[in-house]
Amino acid sequence: MAKRRLRKKRVSKTHKKIGMAPGTVTYMGDKEDVSLHVEVIDYNKDHYSIKNYNTVEETYHLGTEDTITWTNITGLGNVDDIKRLGTFYNIHPLILEDIVDPHQRPRVDEYEDYIFVIAKMLYYKDKELVVEHISIVMGEDYVLTFQESEFDVFDGLRARLEAGRGRIRTEKSDYLLFCILDSVIDNYFLIVEALAEKIENLEDELFEDPQESASQEIQELKRESLRVRKNIFPLREVVSRLEKTEVSYVYPQTINYYKDLYDNIVQVIETIEIYRDMIWGMVDLYMSTMSNKMNNVMKVLTIIATIFIPLTFIAGIYGMNFDYMPELHYKYGYFVVWGIMIVMLVAMVYYFKRKKWL
Amino acid sequence: MAKRRLRKKRVSKTHKKIGMAPGTVTYMGDKEDVSLHVEVIDYNKDHYSIKNYNTVEETYHLGTEDTITWTNITGLGNVDDIKRLGTFYNIHPLILEDIVDPHQRPRVDEYEDYIFVIAKMLYYKDKELVVEHISIVMGEDYVLTFQESEFDVFDGLRARLEAGRGRIRTEKSDYLLFCILDSVIDNYFLIVEALAEKIENLEDELFEDPQESASQEIQELKRESLRVRKNIFPLREVVSRLEKTEVSYVYPQTINYYKDLYDNIVQVIETIEIYRDMIWGMVDLYMSTMSNKMNNVMKVLTIIATIFIPLTFIAGIYGMNFDYMPELHYKYGYFVVWGIMIVMLVAMVYYFKRKKWL
Amino acid sequence: MAKRRLRKKRVSKTHKKIGMAPGTVTYMGDKEDVSLHVEVIDYNKDHYSIKNYNTVEETYHLGTEDTITWTNITGLGNVDDIKRLGTFYNIHPLILEDIVDPHQRPRVDEYEDYIFVIAKMLYYKDKELVVEHISIVMGEDYVLTFQESEFDVFDGLRARLEAGRGRIRTEKSDYLLFCILDSVIDNYFLIVEALAEKIENLEDELFEDPQESASQEIQELKRESLRVRKNIFPLREVVSRLEKTEVSYVYPQTINYYKDLYDNIVQVIETIEIYRDMIWGMVDLYMSTMSNKMNNVMKVLTIIATIFIPLTFIAGIYGMNFDYMPELHYKYGYFVVWGIMIVMLVAMVYYFKRKKWL
Amino acid sequence: MAKRRLRKKRVSKTHKKIGMAPGTVTYMGDKEDVSLHVEVIDYNKDHYSIKNYNTVEETYHLGTEDTITWTNITGLGNVDDIKRLGTFYNIHPLILEDIVDPHQRPRVDEYEDYIFVIAKMLYYKDKELVVEHISIVMGEDYVLTFQESEFDVFDGLRARLEAGRGRIRTEKSDYLLFCILDSVIDNYFLIVEALAEKIENLEDELFEDPQESASQEIQELKRESLRVRKNIFPLREVVSRLEKTEVSYVYPQTINYYKDLYDNIVQVIETIEIYRDMIWGMVDLYMSTMSNKMNNVMKVLTIIATIFIPLTFIAGIYGMNFDYMPELHYKYGYFVVWGIMIVMLVAMVYYFKRKKWL
Amino acid sequence: MAKRRLRKKRVSKTHKKIGMAPGTVTYMGDKEDVSLHVEVIDYNKDHYSIKNYNTVEETYHLGTEDTITWTNITGLGNVDDIKRLGTFYNIHPLILEDIVDPHQRPRVDEYEDYIFVIAKMLYYKDKELVVEHISIVMGEDYVLTFQESEFDVFDGLRARLEAGRGRIRTEKSDYLLFCILDSVIDNYFLIVEALAEKIENLEDELFEDPQESASQEIQELKRESLRVRKNIFPLREVVSRLEKTEVSYVYPQTINYYKDLYDNIVQVIETIEIYRDMIWGMVDLYMSTMSNKMNNVMKVLTIIATIFIPLTFIAGIYGMNFDYMPELHYKYGYFVVWGIMIVMLVAMVYYFKRKKWL
Ligand SMILES: [Mg+2]
Ligand SMILES: [Mg+2]
Ligand SMILES: [Mg+2]
Ligand SMILES: [Mg+2]
Ligand SMILES: [Mg+2]
Ligand SMILES: [Mg+2]
Ligand SMILES: [Mg+2]
Ligand SMILES: [Mg+2]
Ligand SMILES: [Mg+2]
Ligand SMILES: [Mg+2]
Ligand SMILES: [Mg+2]
Ligand SMILES: [Mg+2]
Ligand SMILES: [Mg+2]
Ligand SMILES: [Mg+2]
Ligand SMILES: [Mg+2]
Ligand SMILES: [Mg+2]
Ligand SMILES: [Mg+2]
Ligand SMILES: [Mg+2]
Ligand SMILES: [Mg+2]
Ligand SMILES: [Mg+2]
Ligand SMILES: [Mg+2]
Ligand SMILES: [Mg+2]
Ligand SMILES: [Mg+2]
Ligand SMILES: [Mg+2]
Ligand SMILES: [Mg+2]
Ligand SMILES: [Mg+2]
Ligand SMILES: [Mg+2]
Ligand SMILES: [Mg+2]
Ligand SMILES: [Mg+2]
Ligand SMILES: [Mg+2]
Ligand SMILES: [Mg+2]
Repeated sequence: MAKRRLRKKRVSKTHKKIGMAPGTVTYMGDKEDVSLHVEVIDYNKDHYSIKNYNTVEETYHLGTEDTITWTNITGLGNVDDIKRLGTFYNIHPLILEDIVDPHQRPRVDEYEDYIFVIAKMLYYKDKELVVEHISIVMGEDYVLTFQESEFDVFDGLRARLEAGRGRIRTEKSDYLLFCILDSVIDNYFLIVEALAEKIENLEDELFEDPQESASQEIQELKRESLRVRKNIFPLREVVSRLEKTEVSYVYPQTINYYKDLYDNIVQVIETIEIYRDMIWGMVDLYMSTMSNKMNNVMKVLTIIATIFIPLTFIAGIYGMNFDYMPELHYKYGYFVVWGIMIVMLVAMVYYFKRKKWL
Repeated sequence: MAKRRLRKKRVSKTHKKIGMAPGTVTYMGDKEDVSLHVEVIDYNKDHYSIKNYNTVEETYHLGTEDTITWTNITGLGNVDDIKRLGTFYNIHPLILEDIVDPHQRPRVDEYEDYIFVIAKMLYYKDKELVVEHISIVMGEDYVLTFQESEFDVFDGLRARLEAGRGRIRTEKSDYLLFCILDSVIDNYFLIVEALAEKIENLEDELFEDPQESASQEIQELKRESLRVRKNIFPLREVVSRLEKTEVSYVYPQTINYYKDLYDNIVQVIETIEIYRDMIWGMVDLYMSTMSNKMNNVMKVLTIIATIFIPLTFIAGIYGMNFDYMPELHYKYGYFVVWGIMIVMLVAMVYYFKRKKWL
Repeated sequence: MAKRRLRKKRVSKTHKKIGMAPGTVTYMGDKEDVSLHVEVIDYNKDHYSIKNYNTVEETYHLGTEDTITWTNITGLGNVDDIKRLGTFYNIHPLILEDIVDPHQRPRVDEYEDYIFVIAKMLYYKDKELVVEHISIVMGEDYVLTFQESEFDVFDGLRARLEAGRGRIRTEKSDYLLFCILDSVIDNYFLIVEALAEKIENLEDELFEDPQESASQEIQELKRESLRVRKNIFPLREVVSRLEKTEVSYVYPQTINYYKDLYDNIVQVIETIEIYRDMIWGMVDLYMSTMSNKMNNVMKVLTIIATIFIPLTFIAGIYGMNFDYMPELHYKYGYFVVWGIMIVMLVAMVYYFKRKKWL
Repeated sequence: MAKRRLRKKRVSKTHKKIGMAPGTVTYMGDKEDVSLHVEVIDYNKDHYSIKNYNTVEETYHLGTEDTITWTNITGLGNVDDIKRLGTFYNIHPLILEDIVDPHQRPRVDEYEDYIFVIAKMLYYKDKELVVEHISIVMGEDYVLTFQESEFDVFDGLRARLEAGRGRIRTEKSDYLLFCILDSVIDNYFLIVEALAEKIENLEDELFEDPQESASQEIQELKRESLRVRKNIFPLREVVSRLEKTEVSYVYPQTINYYKDLYDNIVQVIETIEIYRDMIWGMVDLYMSTMSNKMNNVMKVLTIIATIFIPLTFIAGIYGMNFDYMPELHYKYGYFVVWGIMIVMLVAMVYYFKRKKWL
Repeated sequence: MAKRRLRKKRVSKTHKKIGMAPGTVTYMGDKEDVSLHVEVIDYNKDHYSIKNYNTVEETYHLGTEDTITWTNITGLGNVDDIKRLGTFYNIHPLILEDIVDPHQRPRVDEYEDYIFVIAKMLYYKDKELVVEHISIVMGEDYVLTFQESEFDVFDGLRARLEAGRGRIRTEKSDYLLFCILDSVIDNYFLIVEALAEKIENLEDELFEDPQESASQEIQELKRESLRVRKNIFPLREVVSRLEKTEVSYVYPQTINYYKDLYDNIVQVIETIEIYRDMIWGMVDLYMSTMSNKMNNVMKVLTIIATIFIPLTFIAGIYGMNFDYMPELHYKYGYFVVWGIMIVMLVAMVYYFKRKKWL
């Protein structure tokens, strides 16, 4: 952790948006080379199918009236495909614009025919925290999800759909939305746990033998926790508003599940708030420890200097070349001086012992 | 307190939940080996019985229509038993899921037939703060409590139930819920008192003779107060919502008692907030004290060096071996040099006295 | 102020309450030996009497229908008397419990027949801040006040009642409640002033010549201000709710007086908030001053060392005993060396002057 | 600015109020010797007169039914006059009490016949910030203003009234109230500007060459900004409530003007909030700078000591008087030693250069 | 960045406003010499024209009933022209006053015939952050914009109007208002990005090799972020209120666009809040790094002094001139002393190695 992170040189696309018409669909992320992949899961109580495509048009009429169709689009750089899909599903241009902009914060919008949700998938990849933008459009009998790259957190959900375990196959699209968000939020607990471990390890290091790099590690921990905060916190309001939605295609029995989401996200957020206080507390711990170390260095210097500088002065005295210095000719002069020096040394050591410097 | 806490190696179960269906009842704590123990207290004005069982089925039909039945289940690792009990009492799977997850934060949910409350019992065991998850389900004529391990804070309540002291035997299940939460909250005052004592002891140490370990103790006090905060604070909202409940089986005369709970929890929380400020204030006190100590070390060094370095220089001068150094041949040269040195010493000491360094 | 406060060893009574039935009336303070004193003031426009008793029973039927009766009970340790009085006045057990618990925070409760208010009297006694718990029960034609010990802040109020000055004798019990709270709050201004003076004195000391003990004094000031905060702040909400009360025995013309209380308490609280910022600002001032002092100590050391160490080195050179050292035999060698040394000294002094270290 | 402010010895009058009846009119400020001055401006569209008096009685019947009468009373120590005026205008005793108490915070009260406003005039007098208490009573056709001393911020307003510029002479008393508050708030911008300048000057000093006194100046800036905050912030709520008033003698077209006041006060407050952050940021800047200075002092010491202490040791070696020291008799021994010393010196200088200490 | 910014000497105009009638239109900025420029764009679905003028009168009757007319006035110093234009459009004097006062904060006012909005254009010019005041008046079929100087952020919008791309030419004035604010807010993202880059660069410097100037750079970053905050934050409330407007000339389909503005401004603000924490975290990082550096300096000094001071003492002993010092006459005395010294040196080096100082 102490080694220096290599900051990716950011190639800003913000300038591209300046002056453009609102609702212009431009991919604002940095994964342009992910090719389009469309996965369609169509299911109801009795039926389940999963298919994969490379164009959006093939997916238009896959579901029947009494199935739920989950269309998962990967590769936000393929804006033309996404625009065509948007037209087919009658999605507002302002929403298409935000689907392909990974900088958008978590948010929920209710339109007449569908609910639009932005969330962030957080996971560690090669020990690096990845924040992936995910957009969800939920209509009466379909759910669209849009993500930047192949990896996601929905494998358990896919398995449950296939196996038909639990109530998922008997419920509607509102329950699928819940399951998607639940998968996202369940992963936040892993993030929170990783943070907790980093904090404990760093604190242990600070308690035992803090290195100079510790202050950098604290700073990076601050950064990481701020990044987690920024991407998770707005989801609380999103879920809270979902809980209170009044659209016809969210059914009363699902509301309890949305409330459960809310409890989970609140728990994540409270824990992160506690970590925040802990991380900032570590700064003080570090400063105290450095101050202690400095104190100890200074004590060593002071002890040595205080003992030997006066002794050296005495030796200097009797190194002078005056013609008339009676002590020099005393028989035991030399030994008396040694005696005085030893007495001084003992007195000093005793003084430092009493001061608890030794 | 200064000795190093041994952090239990955490074995995370979070990964177990990833991908599972919502409502899956999985024990998320670390006390799997606590075996099932079910205690049933059945009572009304005229009747009182207490029985212990090792299975849930034996407890199903113990109470009569006009008694209140308190079923206290210990051992959250026995998820199958808890699921069967849940089915018997018609408890929502999302609630069963949270009953066996000790990481859930305090919360209240109102369902049609029952109120569900999560709280945290806090107590010290071998000077270690223990946070124990407790879930309460309160229906019209029954109360279920679920806890992780045998020890709890309800012995006084059990004694009152047996003795029939106070109004408890003449009241309904809503009053029993109050008594349970009151027992939990009364124990918080002990925690708050223990914190207060730790703060005062540490502050006394900082005032008198702060050790290096003090900064670690401050950090641990921060940690402990954050942990207490995290587990107590959400209960305020829980009690506040209980106070406003409109379910038919909470009676008007009990509301005053719920209000009393609220006053108590607010008092606990305010006190903890004050402690928070005190603990953070100690960081500054510690830094100031360390800075004072450093100043004193530096003064010793500076006094010694400032006095003896110039004197040693003078001795060095007359230790030079130039052929022609007139002072060396003066009769009283040596004594004059001693005189100069003593004058310098006295001047220095006077200077340091005036600077109040001596 | 710099001398060490002696912390009273706290004898906790919290454990006594654990397991007790709610509504159990137990004195939780530490002044058990104050004996019961009951003072009864009965008055209306034309009538005034004041009497003192040692039992509560004697006071039961003192007032007539058209008088206001103020019964002031001192000595909260006499719980049995207070319980009997409570029964006579029909006071809820939960209220009696809090009347004798000095740890209860300021609060107002409206019951059908009376309003219950908890406040805190703050005053200095032997330069020590005293916080005294006071409970008030105000019914249609009576007011009960309960306090721990004899001293209180109501002497001015008693004098006004006796003299019949102002409107007090023509008003009802709601106005008496106002007068009691007004006396309590007026005393807060004295506390605030004492705090202000302590802050100014300490700041003056920090500006002129901070002692090491200053950091302890700052800490004690923090403590004191936190204690004042804790006991005063909740009263704002109390008064705010009194202002909005709708009970029949609080008359419209009194509401203006309750508003005046509110203005006063807000002013006290705002001032304390300002002091809080000032006290925390002093920590920075102290750290800066200590840092300055350290800088000055280091400069003295550095100046002396930097001047004399090189000079001593030169003297050391010519104190060597090599057979062939030509300079030693130059006629003016010794004086040339002196010259070099003086030039170096002057250069150093000039250098330090330019650096503004001298 | 660096020189020490002389704190006026405060003569507290708080004790005077303790025990007094509420509504007792006692001057709580420290300008008792300002004699009574009453200025009366009577005006309408066609008429304007200004007169000065030394008693209140002379001013009672000056205005006619169709004029607005502004009575400006200076000298709050003349409580008897103010009480008589209060009786004439039928002002509530609680308001009279606050008119003569300069410690009252900004506030608005609506009574049946008039609106009562407290504000604070802030201005610099001899570079000292002055906070002057001003109370305003606005009735249907009159405005009363009460201030402590002669100087005020209304000269521009008086000139506009006399000249009949703008709409002021055609509007009612509600517009005069606006003009008075506008004059008060316009002056806050000057205060804010003075603060900004002080902050910039101090920051410039901290950037270039911070003196020791800088930490005191920061502290005084904190104090001043806190004082400004305290006196200005409550006015926001005052103006906000004025904006929403429903009394009959505030006309709809004036509300826009009250809104303008609100915009202004919000702007002042936001700017002060920014300054607050800047001032606290300066503490960190100062500490960093002092830390840098200390580092530089230590580097000088370390360089000198590290170079010369080893050299002096070598000289010391060859100053020993052993009978048999072969080097002393080498022909070039002395020069070799010089060579070694110079090599060491160069190596040290190179080392410090590489460390960037030189 | 490290070089010292040259603070423009501020010529305050605040005093000019003191005493003036409210609604007096006085230019409060510092760009008096920008001459009047009026640009008029008149358009509808089928028509588009752009014209430039130097007087306001020429622009009065340019649009027809079924076109939208955007009049963009540059040069706020030309107050007389702006007043005449204001009279023509029937704009309230209080609004005209704020149009020419660049210190006004972002705000929205709804009048009967028009909505008035103040915003701030932020952009970098020669690496200097420029904040430009912009006022917008939007009526049923016209929009007026007022700015201080020629440069603005609307070139993309002008191009879209001319090209007739998107829906802009088919929409009404409410959509033009949206486009104007959208252009303003889109530019905030560039500011936020510039801030992010400055923070990252400074943090990198702090991680690698912090210069003394770093504390000044942190302070300037604080200043800049505070300035950005101050000018951007109030716009959130502005947009939030626009979203809820009920005036007849804002059409339902535009509200979605106003909501999009709101999302954008919230995102900007949240990011700035994160940066704030990062910048303040850098102070701690800097202090830690300086403390580390000091520790290292002190270690060098202590190592050198601790090694050589005792050795020099020993050399001093044998430089004394006592008649009787037996060691001096031992044959190998000199070499034994060398041996002792080397052993001491090795022991010291080993000791420092073990302490990890070497
Ligand atoms: Mg991404
Ligand atoms: Mg979940
Ligand atoms: Mg879960
Ligand atoms: Mg749950
Ligand atoms: Mg928090
Ligand atoms: Mg600190
Ligand atoms: Mg800090
Ligand atoms: Mg547990
Ligand atoms: Mg209790
Ligand atoms: Mg209790
Ligand atoms: Mg109670
Ligand atoms: Mg607090
Ligand atoms: Mg601090
Ligand atoms: Mg007490
Ligand atoms: Mg009062
Ligand atoms: Mg008062
Ligand atoms: Mg008052
Ligand atoms: Mg405040
Ligand atoms: Mg500090
Ligand atoms: Mg005043
Ligand atoms: Mg104004
Ligand atoms: Mg103005
Ligand atoms: Mg304005
Ligand atoms: Mg702010
Ligand atoms: Mg700080
Ligand atoms: Mg500008
Ligand atoms: Mg945009
Ligand atoms: Mg955008
Ligand atoms: Mg958008
Ligand atoms: Mg934030
Ligand atoms: Mg700091």
